[in-house]
Amino acid sequence: MSRFLSKKYADLTPYVPGEQPKDMQYVKLNTNESPFAPPYAVAKAVEKEAKLCRLYSNPTCSLLVDKVAEVYNVKPSQVLPTNGSDEILHFAFMAFCDKDTPAIFPDVTYGFYEVFAQLDGVPYKKIPLMEDFSIDVRDYFGVNGTIFIANPNAPTGLALSAMQVEEILQNNPDTIVVIDEAYVDFGGESVVPLIDKYDNLLVTQTFSKSRSLAGARLGLGFASEKLIADLNAMKYSTNPYNVNRMTERAGYVALCKQAYFDKKCKMICENREYTASALKNLGFTVLPSKTNFLFVTTDAIDGKTLYEKLKEKGVLIRHLGGERTAKYNRVTIGTKKQMDVFLQKVQEVLKEQKNGKNV
Amino acid sequence: MSRFLSKKYADLTPYVPGEQPKDMQYVKLNTNESPFAPPYAVAKAVEKEAKLCRLYSNPTCSLLVDKVAEVYNVKPSQVLPTNGSDEILHFAFMAFCDKDTPAIFPDVTYGFYEVFAQLDGVPYKKIPLMEDFSIDVRDYFGVNGTIFIANPNAPTGLALSAMQVEEILQNNPDTIVVIDEAYVDFGGESVVPLIDKYDNLLVTQTFSKSRSLAGARLGLGFASEKLIADLNAMKYSTNPYNVNRMTERAGYVALCKQAYFDKKCKMICENREYTASALKNLGFTVLPSKTNFLFVTTDAIDGKTLYEKLKEKGVLIRHLGGERTAKYNRVTIGTKKQMDVFLQKVQEVLKEQKNGKNV
Repeated sequence: MSRFLSKKYADLTPYVPGEQPKDMQYVKLNTNESPFAPPYAVAKAVEKEAKLCRLYSNPTCSLLVDKVAEVYNVKPSQVLPTNGSDEILHFAFMAFCDKDTPAIFPDVTYGFYEVFAQLDGVPYKKIPLMEDFSIDVRDYFGVNGTIFIANPNAPTGLALSAMQVEEILQNNPDTIVVIDEAYVDFGGESVVPLIDKYDNLLVTQTFSKSRSLAGARLGLGFASEKLIADLNAMKYSTNPYNVNRMTERAGYVALCKQAYFDKKCKMICENREYTASALKNLGFTVLPSKTNFLFVTTDAIDGKTLYEKLKEKGVLIRHLGGERTAKYNRVTIGTKKQMDVFLQKVQEVLKEQKNGKNV
Repeated sequence: MSRFLSKKYADLTPYVPGEQPKDMQYVKLNTNESPFAPPYAVAKAVEKEAKLCRLYSNPTCSLLVDKVAEVYNVKPSQVLPTNGSDEILHFAFMAFCDKDTPAIFPDVTYGFYEVFAQLDGVPYKKIPLMEDFSIDVRDYFGVNGTIFIANPNAPTGLALSAMQVEEILQNNPDTIVVIDEAYVDFGGESVVPLIDKYDNLLVTQTFSKSRSLAGARLGLGFASEKLIADLNAMKYSTNPYNVNRMTERAGYVALCKQAYFDKKCKMICENREYTASALKNLGFTVLPSKTNFLFVTTDAIDGKTLYEKLKEKGVLIRHLGGERTAKYNRVTIGTKKQMDVFLQKVQEVLKEQKNGKNV
């Protein structure tokens, strides 16, 4: 840090993205990407769009927004696309948190919520998950702050029902509830249909997981027209052209190919259940996941050691550390073939561990 | 605005981007885009990259950063790519302005500086340009704040020499000086070579103007390693994957095709001088421009009226309003053919004005 950096960031700890080592080719199960490429139509459309890149993108992204509105059965004025869902989440922190309105979120959840709160200098409170990592919705009733809940939650994979989310909304009528649905397409229940009913609801989604476009950076916010107007004020005060032409086009084409992604999501869910079952047979505790990852632990080996030994064997999973989660690892669900490699390497590690080959 | 929006934004006026009307096909000279498409190699490379978009982009953008370092003769650790140069400018406001360190910029300049200051709630001071719209560098000596100077300036098109910028740097050793070089490739003098000499210098550039990639959204920051580390702290606390895969690739290929862009910049400069000369012959005052636009006025017709009448005739230029600039219009330099249409329509408007046909 330089001598010029504002003193207000003395306590800021930036987010650390999942590692992207280049020393060898890994079976990459560490950042919850889809194992399936986007449909070829995306690349073709993007090529055409790139030829038009001398012109600014459309700040309103109306091509994409109109398509989102059609697919999700909402009004275009209830949609805001952003440069990944991190951007819409940050807009929510900027717009709806301040010194009088703290941010409130679970103690075990997406690590970026705490970073945003630190960055923006807003107070925040972490509400502990239950012993089994589930959320007790009553903990969020009348908390007098802006609530951020990832549903399904990361890294646990556990989900609240739409009815449970509705209870939180009803018990916080005068503050915003942000439901981060990054993983909703793998078995969760979306509350996008509730945005007409609750003026305090913001739902965020992403094209990074179920739509195979992590590298294109596209997120979405869904909310009442008035909340979207607030969030647009943030957008037009930071980066009016926040979504570039190629990404807007990629998102549009992806939405036109819904059947492709539905099929891939179904495959990922099948691979998840296959992997969960196999891990349980190997003695692992596996949280019931509604996402494209599993959160797993075993008494047979320390979480960090398992992560390191798998990395040595060419399989990359995510070890998050942290007080309550140090024993666990998060494993992205890939193809059946990738999961078989993963399971085989886990067995090797467990065997070596048992035979005392671990140094 | 909703009842939930933080009260801290009571005085915020978001930026208004140049209009993008869809009612008809315009000769579009209003947002300083390049009239030339990016080279075909960009679209081909982007198509390939789109196929890899299931994977996150590389947060460090090392492919692009290494190429920038090579082309600009700096170290990779002295470069930060962003989602357009608006993002690097906002990072600078976040990192280097606070209640004790105001933002300082000319009264007539890029409109976003004031928006950033309002958004972040930092005090700011506007220093009036001279009567002829030039900057007197002595006005910026020892001002005790973070200085933002667009060089060449927008919308005036006027430029400071590198030596003049150096005077500002030397007279503010303990505060940051941001030089926004969005238009530098059209005849300005870049101070990127000074980043080794001054630890208080941040230079920003963009691919939106001279590199025909406005729609891809790519900006660059150049500074000492320590300043880049500060700005990276902002990036990793807002959006670690701020530059998507396709944009990183487009930027990389563009840098490999420097000769193409040099040729196009030369053509734009020639068209600029041709247009300036023709407008002067029509009685316009034309500021000497080092950019891809002209800032022009005439006593024969009010600035706003000229803008409106040209729009009716299918030519779109930018009227900015504002106390000192209401008489003026900003005209982007396009192809020779586009400028001939513009000049012809200007003559028509002036003739109609003279004949009293204006209603």
